[in-house]
Amino acid sequence: MAFEITKELLENVAIYIQNGNDNELNKLFKEMHHADIAEVLEDISFEEAVYIIKLLDSETTSDILIELDEAVREKIFEQLTAKEIAEEIDKLDTDDAADIIAELSEERQEAVMAQIEDEEHVKKIEELLSYDENSAGGLMAKELVQVNENWNVLKCVKEMRIQAEEVKHVHSIYVVNDAGQLKGRLSLKDLLVASTRTHISEIYIPKVDFVHVNESAEDVANVMRKYDLEAIPVVDDNDALVGRITIDDIVDVIKEEAEKDYQLAAGISQDVEADDSILDLTKARLPWLILALFGGFISVSILGGFSDAMTTHYQLFFFTPLIAAMAGNVGVQSSAIIVQGLANDSLKGSLWKRLIKEVLQSLINGFVLALILMSIGMLFLKFSFELGITVAISLVTVIIIASIIGTFIPIILDKRGIDPALATGPFITTSNDILGILIYFSIAKLILGF
Amino acid sequence: MAFEITKELLENVAIYIQNGNDNELNKLFKEMHHADIAEVLEDISFEEAVYIIKLLDSETTSDILIELDEAVREKIFEQLTAKEIAEEIDKLDTDDAADIIAELSEERQEAVMAQIEDEEHVKKIEELLSYDENSAGGLMAKELVQVNENWNVLKCVKEMRIQAEEVKHVHSIYVVNDAGQLKGRLSLKDLLVASTRTHISEIYIPKVDFVHVNESAEDVANVMRKYDLEAIPVVDDNDALVGRITIDDIVDVIKEEAEKDYQLAAGISQDVEADDSILDLTKARLPWLILALFGGFISVSILGGFSDAMTTHYQLFFFTPLIAAMAGNVGVQSSAIIVQGLANDSLKGSLWKRLIKEVLQSLINGFVLALILMSIGMLFLKFSFELGITVAISLVTVIIIASIIGTFIPIILDKRGIDPALATGPFITTSNDILGILIYFSIAKLILGF
Repeated sequence: MAFEITKELLENVAIYIQNGNDNELNKLFKEMHHADIAEVLEDISFEEAVYIIKLLDSETTSDILIELDEAVREKIFEQLTAKEIAEEIDKLDTDDAADIIAELSEERQEAVMAQIEDEEHVKKIEELLSYDENSAGGLMAKELVQVNENWNVLKCVKEMRIQAEEVKHVHSIYVVNDAGQLKGRLSLKDLLVASTRTHISEIYIPKVDFVHVNESAEDVANVMRKYDLEAIPVVDDNDALVGRITIDDIVDVIKEEAEKDYQLAAGISQDVEADDSILDLTKARLPWLILALFGGFISVSILGGFSDAMTTHYQLFFFTPLIAAMAGNVGVQSSAIIVQGLANDSLKGSLWKRLIKEVLQSLINGFVLALILMSIGMLFLKFSFELGITVAISLVTVIIIASIIGTFIPIILDKRGIDPALATGPFITTSNDILGILIYFSIAKLILGF
Repeated sequence: MAFEITKELLENVAIYIQNGNDNELNKLFKEMHHADIAEVLEDISFEEAVYIIKLLDSETTSDILIELDEAVREKIFEQLTAKEIAEEIDKLDTDDAADIIAELSEERQEAVMAQIEDEEHVKKIEELLSYDENSAGGLMAKELVQVNENWNVLKCVKEMRIQAEEVKHVHSIYVVNDAGQLKGRLSLKDLLVASTRTHISEIYIPKVDFVHVNESAEDVANVMRKYDLEAIPVVDDNDALVGRITIDDIVDVIKEEAEKDYQLAAGISQDVEADDSILDLTKARLPWLILALFGGFISVSILGGFSDAMTTHYQLFFFTPLIAAMAGNVGVQSSAIIVQGLANDSLKGSLWKRLIKEVLQSLINGFVLALILMSIGMLFLKFSFELGITVAISLVTVIIIASIIGTFIPIILDKRGIDPALATGPFITTSNDILGILIYFSIAKLILGF
């Protein structure tokens, strides 16, 4: 059932547009899901995409627009009047509407908002725009079904029918009191089996998960995932029900968070994809490489400072990439484990316990590796014992220190409100490279005395 | 509203168990969500956890058991008889039941299955066990609400009430024909507004997204995410409706996939968490470090092979960590972008186009970095021009080759059915380290002639 864009499809679209065959285009796109149409629009020329957006009815195009890549959507909006954009916004749920409005310039925002006819809709969008986009308020939609605890099932069903008209997916029916405070929920299943004259206060479930409007998107995701929720109501400081968040938005949050962490660990500084332009890709990659280059300069200087060893113990220099690589690898391992623990909110115990654990682990890893190094090095690569023991001791020391740094930098960043994932990748590898080389040559100097 | 395990709570649990105060324990856990109870059980001693599992009713404990860490669950099951496990399984939805059964030894599986009273349940679990756990069949549950297209709304609602009894969340009502083939769906909202005498065939929506039972979990996740689905029906080769997958399972798939990729990129070979035992953590980390160590040996040998340069151009050796680090960083960047593109199924265009793009990008990055290297190196670090140009040319070459390797290794692995994420992390950094150093000294030898 997977949709695939075929060459034939794209050719047909191009021909229909060339011939102004609007009927065929309408027919073609009517059969397609808006997410698929969005994919097609990203694959054809920009002029063709604008032609199709202008052709299709705003019910469909509004759904298409939210699926488009932000960059493409921005370009298309440049071709539309404030009134045309307002028509699209009008058709969207408040959360999607607010997301799109937020992308416009302030000037354009005002112009578009002035053109939206439904004042209620405008007010709701303005409220949503006031929240941080990475908070529950920034994720939630105002569309939800809520009933008063004092109603009976008959009145409730009647009201629900009206409210359900503007809610795409009804997950739960939220129960509020006269002050609008969240009291509980009615499950659809319960409603299906209840008799019409029952009072809501008798059948509602008072236990309901909810989040506060200022809670972070990541925390909301953790709560919804843990309790397997498909929607969660959002309350304000007065416990008043102000919106609800659905799982499809959370799926995107989880995906984006994970991709961001992954990209940071890989040394890519902004959200890029393989098919972005060379310029975008370069902008995302070059800064980290420049950082690594400057790290490289430092290691060049350190090695230069130990150049005396060149004459007496030149073999030491053969091991610098090995020591640097081990330091980098160990650091990335440690920091990745901590970053995931922080993201899943699963780190327990004191910092001291963590320090001891990390050192013990590094000792085990270090001794196994040192043993392999000594035996292979002396048996096959003909190291002198002096050289072997120097490299081995350095290796163990470097592994311990690299793992401590890898563990604590993310924890410190997180405590200071900085994304701990920044600590993984090039940052950790570069600083551990430098430190590893410095430790290695310092130990060598101590043992071999050059 | 976030649940937190307090010291007080754990102390109370310990005291109640010590005193055999089952009433207080029952009261305490009755108020708690099963996911929270699972967290508590993972924080207390194993004997205490078993005590509580044996104490609480199987309705609750079955839900707790599926939330537990696999290792903890396994240990608890060792303390239960086949009959006790069967009672838990009996209470679970078929998908969770099958997941848990699959963890038992074959012998234990048979013993437990023989004890489950509901034969229908056993048959369904057996069917689910026959599918690959990473396929749609492995994810789906047999619990769903389906109605025949030939029924009217009255009969439909009546049947639904019966079926809904055993379905926790009713997302969609699936419509089938007499042969059991999936024909479409009834949305709950449509049902709320329809009159009781309408025929199902008149009101059902024939357009329905579905997946085939053999489709991969990752593909199912992509489909559900793209179309914002909360549940998706699963069909077999004959288009017969055989199950449905809900979004909460997909959220876990997305999360696990992302974490796995992240861990592989960081050089951690199995699913570990910060709070796992030192042994588990070492097992997950050491193999990659050993790989990196052997890579280190190779670079030691390569450098040894160029030891002639020690006397005439010893400064070259100061740059090996810089070159190796750049090769590693560039390789990881390239492979990460490809791995994400493959995961999201968003890689388009031919391999040749990708090659050209990667080379162009590397040329830009390489030239900028080489320029910085030359200017800073000659102005501040007093490199000779000869040395500067040698390192600069090597840098550009290494960056191009590292990015090509980083791009194509994941693509090749993916084509051969191997997880492309394996290519990121230590594997790419180690091989690029080695290659980078080899290229660097080869170019140096060519230019400087030692």
